Amino acid sequence: MNYPLLSQIKSPADLKSLPVDRLPEVCQEIRHYLINSLSSNPGHFGSSMGAVDIIVALHYVFDTPRDRIVYDVGHQAYSHKILTGRFEAFENQRKKNGISGFPFPFESEYDTFVCGHAGNSISAALGMAIADLNTPGQEDRKTVALIGDASISCGLAFEGLNNASQNPNNLLIILNDNDMSIDDNVGALHRYLSEITTSAGYNRIRYKLYTKFRKWGLIEDKGKGMMLRFNNALKSLVSHEQNIFEGLNIRYFGPFNGNDVQKVVKVLQDIKDMEGPRILHLHTRKGKGYAAAEENPAPWHAPGKFDPTTAHRQAEAKKSGQVPLWQEVFGDTLVELADTHPEIVAVTAAMPTGTSVCKMNKFPDRMFDVGISEGHAVTFAGGLAAAGKRPFVAIYSAFLQRAFDNIIHDVAIQRLPVTFCIDRAGLVGEDGVTHHGLFDISYMRVIPGMKVAAPMDSTTLRNIMYSSLKWDGPLAIRYPRGKADMEPASEMQEIEVGKARVLTCKEGSRTVVLSVGPIGKNVAEAIKRVESEGVTADHYDMIWIKPLDTATLRHVADTYDRIITIEDGAKSGGFGSAVAEWLKTYGCDAELVRLGVPDEWIMHGTVDELQRECGIDVESIAAELRHPMSKTE
Amino acid sequence: MNYPLLSQIKSPADLKSLPVDRLPEVCQEIRHYLINSLSSNPGHFGSSMGAVDIIVALHYVFDTPRDRIVYDVGHQAYSHKILTGRFEAFENQRKKNGISGFPFPFESEYDTFVCGHAGNSISAALGMAIADLNTPGQEDRKTVALIGDASISCGLAFEGLNNASQNPNNLLIILNDNDMSIDDNVGALHRYLSEITTSAGYNRIRYKLYTKFRKWGLIEDKGKGMMLRFNNALKSLVSHEQNIFEGLNIRYFGPFNGNDVQKVVKVLQDIKDMEGPRILHLHTRKGKGYAAAEENPAPWHAPGKFDPTTAHRQAEAKKSGQVPLWQEVFGDTLVELADTHPEIVAVTAAMPTGTSVCKMNKFPDRMFDVGISEGHAVTFAGGLAAAGKRPFVAIYSAFLQRAFDNIIHDVAIQRLPVTFCIDRAGLVGEDGVTHHGLFDISYMRVIPGMKVAAPMDSTTLRNIMYSSLKWDGPLAIRYPRGKADMEPASEMQEIEVGKARVLTCKEGSRTVVLSVGPIGKNVAEAIKRVESEGVTADHYDMIWIKPLDTATLRHVADTYDRIITIEDGAKSGGFGSAVAEWLKTYGCDAELVRLGVPDEWIMHGTVDELQRECGIDVESIAAELRHPMSKTE
Repeated sequence: MNYPLLSQIKSPADLKSLPVDRLPEVCQEIRHYLINSLSSNPGHFGSSMGAVDIIVALHYVFDTPRDRIVYDVGHQAYSHKILTGRFEAFENQRKKNGISGFPFPFESEYDTFVCGHAGNSISAALGMAIADLNTPGQEDRKTVALIGDASISCGLAFEGLNNASQNPNNLLIILNDNDMSIDDNVGALHRYLSEITTSAGYNRIRYKLYTKFRKWGLIEDKGKGMMLRFNNALKSLVSHEQNIFEGLNIRYFGPFNGNDVQKVVKVLQDIKDMEGPRILHLHTRKGKGYAAAEENPAPWHAPGKFDPTTAHRQAEAKKSGQVPLWQEVFGDTLVELADTHPEIVAVTAAMPTGTSVCKMNKFPDRMFDVGISEGHAVTFAGGLAAAGKRPFVAIYSAFLQRAFDNIIHDVAIQRLPVTFCIDRAGLVGEDGVTHHGLFDISYMRVIPGMKVAAPMDSTTLRNIMYSSLKWDGPLAIRYPRGKADMEPASEMQEIEVGKARVLTCKEGSRTVVLSVGPIGKNVAEAIKRVESEGVTADHYDMIWIKPLDTATLRHVADTYDRIITIEDGAKSGGFGSAVAEWLKTYGCDAELVRLGVPDEWIMHGTVDELQRECGIDVESIAAELRHPMSKTE
Repeated sequence: MNYPLLSQIKSPADLKSLPVDRLPEVCQEIRHYLINSLSSNPGHFGSSMGAVDIIVALHYVFDTPRDRIVYDVGHQAYSHKILTGRFEAFENQRKKNGISGFPFPFESEYDTFVCGHAGNSISAALGMAIADLNTPGQEDRKTVALIGDASISCGLAFEGLNNASQNPNNLLIILNDNDMSIDDNVGALHRYLSEITTSAGYNRIRYKLYTKFRKWGLIEDKGKGMMLRFNNALKSLVSHEQNIFEGLNIRYFGPFNGNDVQKVVKVLQDIKDMEGPRILHLHTRKGKGYAAAEENPAPWHAPGKFDPTTAHRQAEAKKSGQVPLWQEVFGDTLVELADTHPEIVAVTAAMPTGTSVCKMNKFPDRMFDVGISEGHAVTFAGGLAAAGKRPFVAIYSAFLQRAFDNIIHDVAIQRLPVTFCIDRAGLVGEDGVTHHGLFDISYMRVIPGMKVAAPMDSTTLRNIMYSSLKWDGPLAIRYPRGKADMEPASEMQEIEVGKARVLTCKEGSRTVVLSVGPIGKNVAEAIKRVESEGVTADHYDMIWIKPLDTATLRHVADTYDRIITIEDGAKSGGFGSAVAEWLKTYGCDAELVRLGVPDEWIMHGTVDELQRECGIDVESIAAELRHPMSKTE
């Protein structure tokens, strides 16, 4: 198929030159294109399909890039990329050196802000809207925040809403309400939003009256007072409850059908020039335009490759006997332990499927999905632990950054036995710079009393989880995205905190590699690779970043001439840094080489490509081992 | 004065044995005692005075410690300490080895959770309430969260509220609404709360009907449905808008006078056995019972020493010509720069006075106090910067932890020119473990592209701020609580990023001390002290933690046999760690000694006492210098 309209749209200006009744065709072409493109080059499907009409309408009505659209969790924004000169480039989205899967300011002037973590759009857009009002010549620029219903219930978004009417601004917030995030949506606000629909009649009347009155010159937009008085008067007319957003002093419009592009254009035109903060509530359907995704949105959030005709997803083809994912090893082990330990409970923040916490559905009153609320998740777990429970909190590394203070203040200071299961730790690949989990080692190891482990294989992960039930205080276990290994789920063994294990140790080796986590598998392969070249090196799986196995380190310092540390995480402040601290204090003269992710922002690509870029792939390690000192003498 | 009732109350059991009409006397005695005690041993006065009646009522009605009170920002909780066996110990509150200024679980079984950072009580108490319902034999335990109106508008509290009705629980949230935090309260929720008062009539009727209906057996508490239906029915009766909390599915009661202890007891008795999450809205007056504090609450939040009779505060006696505080140097410099740089804006999170951001009131539309919303503060600053402003974000180090992800995601990835002015960095003294700012060096230096500086004196702080306007990307400047120095506010000079300065350098010195921040003044004094003993050491003020001055480090590594690093912050992952990383990679054989705060939780005391405990006071440094290698040969 070709795309008669899309192929003509080189920028939003071309879109704006179309009559409004052609927009449904544009939306249809975009959807058709997304189905074809994402079926072979996977990405975030469901939310991007749902948001097509809103984004087309936004670029049609507003004057981008002078007017700014701030996306919240940018994986809904594929249409935006396609309409802003990246139609051809889209074929390479999420590929190394291709365009990002999220809007990214260094990629296009149409991309106004980074949007990989949920809930930031209102705060960021408010900053822009206020800045413009205070900058001569910029006062007429418009800023729109486009936020989903899952994001708007996170604490950061609430803080933004709570501040939205504090200073003069003309921010327009569009709530793209598709009634679900990746998994089912949670929280009272979400329930509340769905109930607003019941007041649709009232809101429709109010909106109609408002636009009429405005047309007839009965309402001025200067100042908020008039509109509020109008609202109140109308309220007493149609007698209806006050809306939460109006309680926060933000004008509310909606709900309207966000998948009706002409309707959205009409509403936007009506309200775009109003003054003061406003929220427009639009209902959309996740996966809109593709039946399979509309019917079953969860797996179609990021479906992987699929057959566009049959809607058969490759991921479905997974058979038993395949290598399990890390999160599956975690989830299965948790359920196994929970069976005999009634004090175990599981907490996650909007990622029950991604983290496998959903497996705890077996014990429905011991599984808590708190929505996109990482801070609450951790403090809540602190409360559970203070009352005698053993919470396992599973959150992706990059998102757990949101809860750094909660980990310190609400768990670690109190030495509560909360286990942080840090999923997606390390390089995550295609999701790129906002999603890599590179800092958890650094920020966890500085917290007094925190134990930090990175198992190399699933057996060790299982043993740590098993043993942890006898340990006091907080524990962090990090493991990456992707496949674990086929080690059988045998009976779990008790292991010691802070005890490393020697993997290979040969007579006369002068070089040792100290690894933490599954990156150790690269090390093992590299050692094998250089063996035939007469190069030897020993390999210790340190497992523990904190407490460090100082007995082993003492032996290492006294034995080897060259010590290589390696981690799938930021070198700065990380595991190698902890080893450097220790060695330097101990007074070790051996050479230290620290491998890990350099002190730079790492973009997207496959994990293999990114490991190569960072020098932690097998060949880079092998090259390090071939250093003269590693040769057996 | 003696305290006839208080002296008899050894535990809440003694309080409960009193008839309810004696409780006003108890409250009066507590207030009298607080005035006397805090006038000579300073602490948080205003909020503790305001909360007396609520806390007396809570211990009277509930069965503590089996029933749990979770305080939100525990400096309101002095009455709680006095009533729970710490009447005598209170004389030593906030002193080294004395009791903490905040509830602290290791101090008393009545202290249920750490509460130094705002907004955590709902999440923590919810965890406890849910855990109890799910633990055989514990189902009847009650949990109360006592939260102020400033705390409840922070994002974490909202996340807690949003999840409060998600799982079965009987949590009671008490909103202690005194209409201000430390400075004036901000945000739409706050305005909303004050407007609720206008519906007091409706709420009073509803409450009366509810208790009557309940007494007559017309309402059951099983399940939430009945009450909600009751609410709705009543709503149509008295026709009033829906309450935000009810929108979040939490039953709302109030507002009542929270300074009427008998009334509070009555209400608590009425609602304590209800099922499901509830919120009770109480109005109190900050400083209640002490006229000066009631009239002018801001300075009486933590007034320092004062004369109980005249209400004269020692702090008021401050004269010009005194050594300025660090925050004052920052604030004055900011205003000075803002005068000629219209792009400069200032952001703070509920601490305009504490950070001196209030000085920017000179430019009212360029000063933003966003309330207790550190995450929003940073993301909002990111938005301001993206629209061309130069935001200076001033937040205390310990509270900035809340915004760690925002710093990474909403500022640093985008390389936005936001300057983080990290106040109260290092040991803060009497506020203790939750308030020390020990981790900022560690968590800031791991962020790619972040510049991190710690000026030793006010001239350097001013020069960094001045020069930063020409730099790209984010910058963090840390400075401690307390007095800066008398260096004159001379014209600012441009300085280089990442450039250290040599303070003392003597022929033949084998030892060098590398310091960052004002702790360098201790170093200078220690060097002076040991000079007469024939001990010499050189001293470099490194200023920059990131980027490190590697040219200077190279010289240091090649010149000295013994390198001592010192910082007023966590040693783990901190400045000394960065130096260790660099030296070990460079291959330096010199001995490295890292001084700083050890990897432990540091409690309260004076800053001097705590520096001694951590080995970073003058004498500890001197002792380190007396090491054999430091002697001139």
